[in-house]
Amino acid sequence: MALLFAEDGVHVSLSDPSEEAMDAVIEKAEKSGYNGKVKKYKHYDSLCKSLSTPRLLVFSLPHGSVGDKVLEGLMPHLSRSDIILDCGNEHFANTERRQEKVKDTGIRYIGCGVSGGYQAARAGPSMCPGGDESALKEVLPLLERVAAKDKNEKPCVGIVGKGGSGHYVKMVHNGIEHGMMSALCEAWGIMRNMGMGYEEIGNVFKDWNSSGELKGTFLISIGADLSHKREPGKDSNADGKSSSQGNHPLVISEVLDKVVQDITGEEGTGIWSNTEAIELHVPAFTLNIAHAFRLASAFRGDREKANTALDGGFPPSELNIQDKAAFIEDLRKATYLSCLASFIQGINIIARADQAHGWGIDYAQVWQIWRAGCIIQADYISDEILAPVLKSNPSSNLNLNFSPRVAKDLHNCFPALRRVVAKSVETDQVTPAISATLEYFKVISATDLPTAFYEAELDYFGSHMFDMKSDKDQQVKEPMEGKHHFEWKPATSQKEVYGQNYKV
Amino acid sequence: MALLFAEDGVHVSLSDPSEEAMDAVIEKAEKSGYNGKVKKYKHYDSLCKSLSTPRLLVFSLPHGSVGDKVLEGLMPHLSRSDIILDCGNEHFANTERRQEKVKDTGIRYIGCGVSGGYQAARAGPSMCPGGDESALKEVLPLLERVAAKDKNEKPCVGIVGKGGSGHYVKMVHNGIEHGMMSALCEAWGIMRNMGMGYEEIGNVFKDWNSSGELKGTFLISIGADLSHKREPGKDSNADGKSSSQGNHPLVISEVLDKVVQDITGEEGTGIWSNTEAIELHVPAFTLNIAHAFRLASAFRGDREKANTALDGGFPPSELNIQDKAAFIEDLRKATYLSCLASFIQGINIIARADQAHGWGIDYAQVWQIWRAGCIIQADYISDEILAPVLKSNPSSNLNLNFSPRVAKDLHNCFPALRRVVAKSVETDQVTPAISATLEYFKVISATDLPTAFYEAELDYFGSHMFDMKSDKDQQVKEPMEGKHHFEWKPATSQKEVYGQNYKV
Repeated sequence: MALLFAEDGVHVSLSDPSEEAMDAVIEKAEKSGYNGKVKKYKHYDSLCKSLSTPRLLVFSLPHGSVGDKVLEGLMPHLSRSDIILDCGNEHFANTERRQEKVKDTGIRYIGCGVSGGYQAARAGPSMCPGGDESALKEVLPLLERVAAKDKNEKPCVGIVGKGGSGHYVKMVHNGIEHGMMSALCEAWGIMRNMGMGYEEIGNVFKDWNSSGELKGTFLISIGADLSHKREPGKDSNADGKSSSQGNHPLVISEVLDKVVQDITGEEGTGIWSNTEAIELHVPAFTLNIAHAFRLASAFRGDREKANTALDGGFPPSELNIQDKAAFIEDLRKATYLSCLASFIQGINIIARADQAHGWGIDYAQVWQIWRAGCIIQADYISDEILAPVLKSNPSSNLNLNFSPRVAKDLHNCFPALRRVVAKSVETDQVTPAISATLEYFKVISATDLPTAFYEAELDYFGSHMFDMKSDKDQQVKEPMEGKHHFEWKPATSQKEVYGQNYKV
Repeated sequence: MALLFAEDGVHVSLSDPSEEAMDAVIEKAEKSGYNGKVKKYKHYDSLCKSLSTPRLLVFSLPHGSVGDKVLEGLMPHLSRSDIILDCGNEHFANTERRQEKVKDTGIRYIGCGVSGGYQAARAGPSMCPGGDESALKEVLPLLERVAAKDKNEKPCVGIVGKGGSGHYVKMVHNGIEHGMMSALCEAWGIMRNMGMGYEEIGNVFKDWNSSGELKGTFLISIGADLSHKREPGKDSNADGKSSSQGNHPLVISEVLDKVVQDITGEEGTGIWSNTEAIELHVPAFTLNIAHAFRLASAFRGDREKANTALDGGFPPSELNIQDKAAFIEDLRKATYLSCLASFIQGINIIARADQAHGWGIDYAQVWQIWRAGCIIQADYISDEILAPVLKSNPSSNLNLNFSPRVAKDLHNCFPALRRVVAKSVETDQVTPAISATLEYFKVISATDLPTAFYEAELDYFGSHMFDMKSDKDQQVKEPMEGKHHFEWKPATSQKEVYGQNYKV
């Protein structure tokens, strides 16, 4: 981040508990020719004195209590109108708590989600700021300079909304990212079990990225790229002994199947986007199961133990596909629908939170922010699916499941999704997110779900009440308690149940 | 609850903001012959004076702030050694907060989950108390009298553990319940689409309940029962007009497909058991998707809109099954594995929370509490699967996925589960929980997941680190950050990316 700003001609004052970390940044800055643009400060006092007022302080911190401590330390050295731009993946509630804390001091705290990974942190990230409008307007010109630019040269940054909305939208961005990554790795696994080589799969991803519904999808473009990477100077000996044979293995062939970020605490956004979906009552089949899949992957020791107990478990069998090209085309469409479902579910979460918190989210800005520089960049989805809805900035009831454009693609791709899941089930492929997506689209468009039986059972044992098919009032459409109870079985006393065996 | 205690010879002092509610209880008590056993009190002062010390106060309140207010109001009238038995579905963290609040006063606060619904509330519920051990020992004899009795006449109550563990275990009980109910309604929906009548399905459930892996499953027994119920005096006219024809419709045929408890706030346990799974990093495929399914069902208006946009959506087609009996047998096994998965995932959540909170949960008691009287009563699962593990009271790493007994049933039933899901996918049946269960058992026993590709992508864009297949250290088995990073693509500056189009 420091280099990103320095590259743009900004004088950067660094502060970090680790002096080595600061020296490393300064060394990089010097090498890049930004002489004297980046300076280090050990104490908040000198740091804050080095900045012209109103000061702009950029946080790039782990989520949680660290930000509170840093804010506490800084506050005595700050003045009215200073701006804190929190660029970490902070929980939106922490952001809002800090916004409340500084409110009376005149200091303005912006929660700004930043996407793009360490690669984009220098090449220009996608930036998602929310909070005090006056502060946002002041920093926007600077952010527009450092942010990624879309294909029309427009910066991928904009004023998202009030309060913690910037961090919230970024959190959901990551939830969508995880849904997409699950689907993509499942497709990759299926192709592996079709007998395809790593590089061959990379070439398929390259095709997917070049046209059609997955066109311009960042995660697919890097998937294509990484499939060809070989580690220089490393050979294919699995035991680590060196060998002089020149045929270096593909790096991907050696990567273990553990995704651990949620558990190490490095990343909170995957957890929060799923708990938020649940707390806000948003059905997020694809995101929820993608998250559970990550978790299961992380506990490799548990999987090994279960594998032993199960005598090898239920590993996928080789896929014998007659028409390979046709199946790969089906797989492309199934992957697309899973990515689309991730977007739909994520945007549903944002819309519900926006209503709950009154953030006044500017959806046209969210659209622009996700155009480039971020991990979920997906040009076709952005141009064809999101633009018609988000750019019109719907104020309420934003649900892409009602979009005729989504319906068109669903009709086109659903049969392919069904065929992929059917073949995967038959041959024990691992497809949690793709399967959940199939169920999702069936369920959210159904008007006769088997949950009628579920509802009857709840009323039987818990007197939970139900609506009837013949009810015509508006309440029937809303998630409100039903109006009817049937006394399926008169409540009996303990004496009646246990008869003479009953003992006091 | 008042009647339950009164029936057992206990003098009950009632207190409720609604005098009508109290009068109704007293009227019922008089009718049942418990003359003078139940009395009403309008004020906490007289209520507390009516009780002999040490007092036992039983809360039956909605979750959330109500309990705080009641506790606040009662405290001035209570004395050292009094016991509060909170029998609501309270969030365990609220329970622990209140335990902390009363700690210095000598008042003892027990969080006691109660299961069985309004039916069992009188016939004897399953009771799950946790908290202060001395208080638990004092109330246990009374609870043993009112609790449900298992087939060996043993009461379904026991000291679960410290702190909020009683409410926690009950919360997970409800999570398991919801997983089971999803699977069961999905099986019901499949049988409906096989052309089976409601009563015919009820008869199948009766068979399932009588022997085999689903033997003695409460939710199946009531499912069998409710399938035959006709509302007296109500005819089959859907428009509500009365008719004199005697053929009353089956109640189940008229119930609408909305499950709304999570959203009305009536029930918090479904939400919390899922957010807990996520926050504790427990992969709970079946429970997560069952919950999302409930949510989707609740928003009937949204489903209708999506159905219209999608021109009718993707409704299930009729199932043409050659060998109906064989398919129903497959369906039974698929339903069983989904119920089993719900138990496994739920117990994993409890075990992880137990470790995190240091509750010292007595798993043999959990087993006993779930034997009868509760909604998740499942005799086969209890006897065959849970008993060998829970009764030995494992202190750590309690994971039924490592159980040879589970493995035996999985090997026996997995092919049936696969066939049911395959057929369901082919014909667009709605099977979110059953499908998620299939994916679950594949994933948790796999040693070569496609998440290897996911992990490589994370390292590519985020430098997230990975483990390698050749790594032999213990860390590889744990959910810890990997030791390797590959510089898949050297980080480039903004200038390099945008070339001459780059503008400062």
